[in-house]
Amino acid sequence: MAVNLRAPDPAQLPAVAGVELGIAMAGVRKANRKDLLVVRLAPGTAIAGVFTRNRFCAAPVVLAKKHLGNPVRALVVNTGNANAGTGADGVKRALQVCKALAAALGCRPAQVLPFSTGVIMEPLPVERIVAGLPAAVADLRAANWASAAEAIMTTDTVAKAASARVKLSTGPATVTGIAKGSGMIRPDMATMLGFVATDAKVARPALQRMTRAAADQSFNAITVDGDTSTNDAFICLATGKGPAARSKKDLDALAGAIAGVAQTLAQAIVRDGEGATKFVTVRIEGGRSAAECRKVAYAIAHSPLVKTAFFASDPNLGRILAAIGYAGVAGLDATKVDLYLDEVLVAKGGSRHAAYREEQGAAAMKKPEFTVRALLNRGRAAATVWTCDLSFDYVKINAEYRS
Amino acid sequence: MAVNLRAPDPAQLPAVAGVELGIAMAGVRKANRKDLLVVRLAPGTAIAGVFTRNRFCAAPVVLAKKHLGNPVRALVVNTGNANAGTGADGVKRALQVCKALAAALGCRPAQVLPFSTGVIMEPLPVERIVAGLPAAVADLRAANWASAAEAIMTTDTVAKAASARVKLSTGPATVTGIAKGSGMIRPDMATMLGFVATDAKVARPALQRMTRAAADQSFNAITVDGDTSTNDAFICLATGKGPAARSKKDLDALAGAIAGVAQTLAQAIVRDGEGATKFVTVRIEGGRSAAECRKVAYAIAHSPLVKTAFFASDPNLGRILAAIGYAGVAGLDATKVDLYLDEVLVAKGGSRHAAYREEQGAAAMKKPEFTVRALLNRGRAAATVWTCDLSFDYVKINAEYRS
Repeated sequence: MAVNLRAPDPAQLPAVAGVELGIAMAGVRKANRKDLLVVRLAPGTAIAGVFTRNRFCAAPVVLAKKHLGNPVRALVVNTGNANAGTGADGVKRALQVCKALAAALGCRPAQVLPFSTGVIMEPLPVERIVAGLPAAVADLRAANWASAAEAIMTTDTVAKAASARVKLSTGPATVTGIAKGSGMIRPDMATMLGFVATDAKVARPALQRMTRAAADQSFNAITVDGDTSTNDAFICLATGKGPAARSKKDLDALAGAIAGVAQTLAQAIVRDGEGATKFVTVRIEGGRSAAECRKVAYAIAHSPLVKTAFFASDPNLGRILAAIGYAGVAGLDATKVDLYLDEVLVAKGGSRHAAYREEQGAAAMKKPEFTVRALLNRGRAAATVWTCDLSFDYVKINAEYRS
Repeated sequence: MAVNLRAPDPAQLPAVAGVELGIAMAGVRKANRKDLLVVRLAPGTAIAGVFTRNRFCAAPVVLAKKHLGNPVRALVVNTGNANAGTGADGVKRALQVCKALAAALGCRPAQVLPFSTGVIMEPLPVERIVAGLPAAVADLRAANWASAAEAIMTTDTVAKAASARVKLSTGPATVTGIAKGSGMIRPDMATMLGFVATDAKVARPALQRMTRAAADQSFNAITVDGDTSTNDAFICLATGKGPAARSKKDLDALAGAIAGVAQTLAQAIVRDGEGATKFVTVRIEGGRSAAECRKVAYAIAHSPLVKTAFFASDPNLGRILAAIGYAGVAGLDATKVDLYLDEVLVAKGGSRHAAYREEQGAAAMKKPEFTVRALLNRGRAAATVWTCDLSFDYVKINAEYRS
C-alpha cells in the first residue's frame, strides 16, 4: 500500500553545517529498533516552532514550548511512547531526559527540547531512554539525516526526508528536513513531528514567521483521518554557519525553500497515510475566503464516504457534492458549483455535466494520484488540502495497533 | 454484523386512525424489491417536518418543503434513487410523481409530499415510479406499517419501526413511526427518512414544535460516518381521528411519546450503521453549554481512530482523550477531565486513573453496547450522542456500493 515517493537516498540529503545527529536503539517499546534521536546544535542556532493546539498536549510539547525561548543546544526525540495524557508525572519524566542529555553535552536542561511520539497514556520509560543516550551521543555526526529520518518512524512505512539548495545574495544555503507521521494526522498548527534545518543565518523573529508560513502551506494542509495529535510539533533551525539572509529578497528565497521542503515532507506523510492507496489533492477555488475554501476541502477530505469511494476508484460524485453541501458555507449556492476530477468536468452548476461519461471519472480515479477540484463561483479565494483514501488496511492497522 | 434490536413484529405496530399505507415493487433500481410507498392521510391531518441543511438538498426535499404548508393528503417515497444533485430537471421529475399520485387519489399535486432515497446524481426513473403507483394505491390499508418500514430500506439490514401509546386527558392516543438509514448518517435537523404519525388532534404550530424537539433528542443526536445526507427528512403527522391534545399536560405527554418513538428509531439507525458491531452512547457532562458538550461528543463519535478502537474492543484511552482535546472547546482544562467506560473510571484529571486496570476497560468495550462518559468539570450542561464503530465492513459496504 501507500503512495510513497522513493525512499530518500542518503547521498541526496545534504548535511547542514552546525547540525549533528545521533541515533540509538533504546528499546523504548520494542527491541532492535532505532527509536532514539539526539540532535546537537551549534551555539547561536536560531530556533522556531509551531505546536499542536490539542488541549491534551503532551508533556514533551509543554516542555519544548517552555524551552524554545532559550539558546537551544539540542533536541531529543523518542518513538514508542508519546508521553501524552500523563499529567505532571509526564512532565517530570520528560525533564529527566533533558537533564541526562544536558549532562552528556555540557549544557543546561532548559537548552534541550524533548519530543515523543508513539502510544498515548503510558508512562515514559525514562531509564531505557537515559540508558540509550550515550550511544546516540557517540553516534553524533553531520551526515546522519537519513538515519535520523528512520529513527523517528512509528507506523510510517518509509522514512521521510527532503532537501533544497537556495541561492542567497551572500552565497548558497542548504535546507534539509525530516518528518514522521502516518496516522492521527490532521495537524492543527504543526504535524506529528517535522524538523527542518538550514545553515543560513537568520534572525529568530524572521525564522518564526517563515516557520508559521511554511506550516500553513504544508503540515496544516494535510489530513489522513482528521485526528489532531497531542504531540504535533514542527521545528525550524537556522545554525548561521552559512550565508546570512538579511535582505527581503534573501528572506523570501529562504522562506520559499523552507516551505518547499516542508511541503514535500507533509505530502510524504499523506502518501504514507495509514492504509493509503491513493494520494489526492483537493483544490477549492472561487470561494469568498481561503477559510471557507479550506472548510469545503476538509469536508471532502474527511468524509469516510468520499474516502471509501477514492479507495474503490468509484467516481461517486454525489458523495463529493454532498460533502460540499454540508461543509457549512453559509449561503452557498449549490447550483453554481462546478466539479472536476483531474481535467474532466464532471458536474456543472451543481448537476452532472451533460457531456460527462462515468468511464472518464473512473479513469481519473483509478490513478494513484489525482486532483478533486471544485469551483464555488462566488469569490476569488482558493485553498488546497492533501489527503488519502480510506481502505481496509486503515481499519486493520488501527484495530490492531497496540495489540 | 449490526447491533440491531429485534425486527419489529407487525402485530406490535398499532395502526394510526387516518393513515393508510400502500407498498409496491416499482423496479426503481432493482427488480423484485419493495421500493415504493404511498401514504394516504385523512383530511384535516396536521403535518410538520424538519429537513436536511445540506446545501445540495435533493429535489424532493425542495418540493416537500414547498408543499408542507398545504393541506397535505399523501406522501410518496421511493428508494433506489435519491433524485439529488439533479437540478431543475430533478424537481420537474419529482413533481411528475406528485401529479400522478394526486390524479390517482383525487387531490392536488401540491397536496403530495415526495421523498426519495438511494443513489445520488442519477435521473429519477419517473416512468417506472408512476407505473408502480396503481399497485401501491391498491395496497393502501391502515395495518401496513411493518411492510412500509421494509419498503423504505436501502443499505439497511433490518426494518425500523417503533410505537407508543400515550394517555391524554381526552383518551388514549397512538404514536407509530418508521425510519430508514444506515450510511451517510449525521443528520442535521433530521435524518435520512423518518415518519411518525399519531391519531391525536393537535394544532400544527404545536406539532411543529414537538417535531423539532423530537429531532433534537433523536435524529440530530446520532452519527454513523459524519456525512450529512442531501435527503434527510423527518415528518410528523397528526390525523386528529383520536383524542385532542390541548392542555399543556396533554401536549407534553404527546411530545414525550413522539420524542420517545423518534429516539428508538434514531438509535435503530445507528444500531444498523454500515458495518456496525458496537452501539456506543457518548455522554458528555459538566460542560458550560450543551453546544460544547455536543462538540466533544461528536469529536469522539467521528474520530476514525476512536471508532476503529471500538471495533477492536481496545480501550485506547489516548485516542478518546485526544479527540476531547481537539474538539475545539476554548479554554478546556485537560487536567480536569474524567473519563468513564461504562461504570469504570479510566482517567481522572486528564491522566490514567491510578486504580484502573486495562482488563476493566477491555471488558467494558467487548460488550456490543457500552457508554463512553466524559466529565469536563467546568459547568452543568450535558449532551448525548449515539454512534457505532468503524469496521472492515464499513469500508467494504461503501467501496462496493453502486458497483
